Amino acid sequence: TALKLGMIPADGIGKEVLPAAQRVLEALGSSIPKPTFIPLKAGWEEFQANGKALPDETVKILKEECDAAMFGSVSSPSHKVAGYSSPIVALRKHLDLYANVRPVSSVPIPNQKSYHQCDMVIVRENTECLYIKKEEIKTNDDGSKIALATRQITSRASSRIGKMAFEIALRRGQERQQAKESGKDVWWNGEPKVTIVHKSNVLSVTDGLFRESVRAIKEGTDRYDGVKMEEQLVDSMVYRMFREPEIFDVAVAPNLYGDIISDGAAALVGSLGLVPSINAGDDFVMGEPVHGSAPDIEGQNIANPIASIRSAALLLSSLGYVEPASRINAAVDAVLTEGQYLTPDLGGKSSTTDVTEAILKRL
Amino acid sequence: TALKLGMIPADGIGKEVLPAAQRVLEALGSSIPKPTFIPLKAGWEEFQANGKALPDETVKILKEECDAAMFGSVSSPSHKVAGYSSPIVALRKHLDLYANVRPVSSVPIPNQKSYHQCDMVIVRENTECLYIKKEEIKTNDDGSKIALATRQITSRASSRIGKMAFEIALRRGQERQQAKESGKDVWWNGEPKVTIVHKSNVLSVTDGLFRESVRAIKEGTDRYDGVKMEEQLVDSMVYRMFREPEIFDVAVAPNLYGDIISDGAAALVGSLGLVPSINAGDDFVMGEPVHGSAPDIEGQNIANPIASIRSAALLLSSLGYVEPASRINAAVDAVLTEGQYLTPDLGGKSSTTDVTEAILKRL
Ligand SMILES: CC(C)[C@H](C(=O)O)[C@@H](O)C(=O)O
Ligand SMILES: CC(C)[C@H](C(=O)O)[C@@H](O)C(=O)O
Repeated sequence: TALKLGMIPADGIGKEVLPAAQRVLEALGSSIPKPTFIPLKAGWEEFQANGKALPDETVKILKEECDAAMFGSVSSPSHKVAGYSSPIVALRKHLDLYANVRPVSSVPIPNQKSYHQCDMVIVRENTECLYIKKEEIKTNDDGSKIALATRQITSRASSRIGKMAFEIALRRGQERQQAKESGKDVWWNGEPKVTIVHKSNVLSVTDGLFRESVRAIKEGTDRYDGVKMEEQLVDSMVYRMFREPEIFDVAVAPNLYGDIISDGAAALVGSLGLVPSINAGDDFVMGEPVHGSAPDIEGQNIANPIASIRSAALLLSSLGYVEPASRINAAVDAVLTEGQYLTPDLGGKSSTTDVTEAILKRL
Repeated sequence: TALKLGMIPADGIGKEVLPAAQRVLEALGSSIPKPTFIPLKAGWEEFQANGKALPDETVKILKEECDAAMFGSVSSPSHKVAGYSSPIVALRKHLDLYANVRPVSSVPIPNQKSYHQCDMVIVRENTECLYIKKEEIKTNDDGSKIALATRQITSRASSRIGKMAFEIALRRGQERQQAKESGKDVWWNGEPKVTIVHKSNVLSVTDGLFRESVRAIKEGTDRYDGVKMEEQLVDSMVYRMFREPEIFDVAVAPNLYGDIISDGAAALVGSLGLVPSINAGDDFVMGEPVHGSAPDIEGQNIANPIASIRSAALLLSSLGYVEPASRINAAVDAVLTEGQYLTPDLGGKSSTTDVTEAILKRL
């Protein structure tokens, strides 16, 4: 059997970091089914060339032929361009990848300005909120303009993302327990915890619904009795994440808040170039580094490939290949803690290729 | 002549920090018109007692009798409560206080975990975005729910907040210039700068309108030729603020993004208990600490009064009393850098009263 992976580098450094992830997947040998990689098109550059940011062909092949996929990063025009719409947002919707799971954990990397103890997972709702992109604009008689956007929150989407968050918290609790029993050093001492992020003091209806739907997941069963539940207003969440990141375990948030707090968390652990994600649905999963297309460093072979490589590991683990995923993560951690091969975002001088090869050596 | 100030402590620690600000204002002597303070009601506790979070009487007196006002902080119920709506959001709207100006600057305080060079002003639009609170909810046939909120962005509100941001940047540039000429140490070397915060890669219509309206302010005149203009997507803004806060001067943002990034900036300078704001319109101004009502420490006389005291200074300076405002700020900075009187949020053991008295002594 083979593992068919759609590869969508899209724009900018996506085209440099996705091949790095591919090399790592190829190096895993018989611990996973032999992967085959199907290159697929999407992105701003694709739009400029052929008029479609997300070609139908790409969606068709993903749905009909692929077991899973990897996405790079997209650029976006600074002005509104007729017909252009973010392909990553569209892909999440087309494939019903309703959860964006973003683990953010710190590794002690030599020579960083600061080190924050942090090991959290941000579970971001991925299909609604302001990302439904229902917007309109009107010109008033006096020539001034009024634009409106609709923010949608449903009980269905909020419940399923809530369930995902509690399941992840449960699993993390079990993993920590096992690690402790096998004599490993685990700094998290309490129960697993889910923090619901919202702004229901202002958006009492929409964020109220999100909040209640997630709360009902825990309250409706005894399965999560061992998982604590807390809440943070999104502004306060950003504040506390920076003051005491070590108090968070799993955070669940509507789409836009999830987007913002995961970039915040990335700053804590040293670089956006380290933070992986998967876009997960019930039938499909797509790995994606949290960083953007970084046009300023594009084409220089200095982008950090680790976010993509870790996204590949996360993807494998969600497909059930837990052991090869751990091998990748261990190799990445080894390279980071040694600190000999670091890209410029971490204060190093190594290239994308150097870092990738260092990881391959430690696999 | 007198200065009539409406005082709205509202909930929680608002009732402890607003009296501290009042004491400082009273101590300024003849450098300002003699202040008289009119206590006014609002808040969650007021709602519970008398059924209105913002009594009509409060708005009437503010409009008809007061020259300016100070607001404390509000608590909010964790569940939606019929008839309750945030009084601070309502006040901003009623008095057309369209700008929330939040200066965030670091002072070297002894024994803090970290020190980040930071001296920025966040200019937050204060009347629209999701804060218009147009929300609705429907139950589908299958019992599931769908909630919708409207996000409103107008060219009018975006232009006036943009203008405010450029004016502030211009003034800051002049002040830095003067400080340099008088031999003071000024670390900001370049031109003044306005960073527009948005998410137009997803919200191309609403955030597109915000972005264009602000850009047009600079592009429509040569008055701001000496002010640079940059942009950051809101997620990236949070990331960069934590990585290199020293690169920001003035940031202008729609309401919700402004709310989130100002809490983020507060974490950078040590505590939310340090960050002041004014809600400013063309005819009225209201000082307000950025922190919330902190029910966990309410009534213990340990809340940091500095955010409120600095808000009073900001208020004075916006009314044209620049010298007494500077005196307050200098006294606050002296107390912070000495580090003898610090409240627990800064790792100290002093009470609200101790810190207030230390500041009064140095006035
Ligand atoms: C590129 C952009 C549309 C995207 C988002 O906002 O979801 C990005 O910021 C992300 O976090 O994946
Ligand atoms: C209390 C709340 C409504 C308020 C806001 O979101 O504006 C607060 O967070 C603030 O920043 O002043």
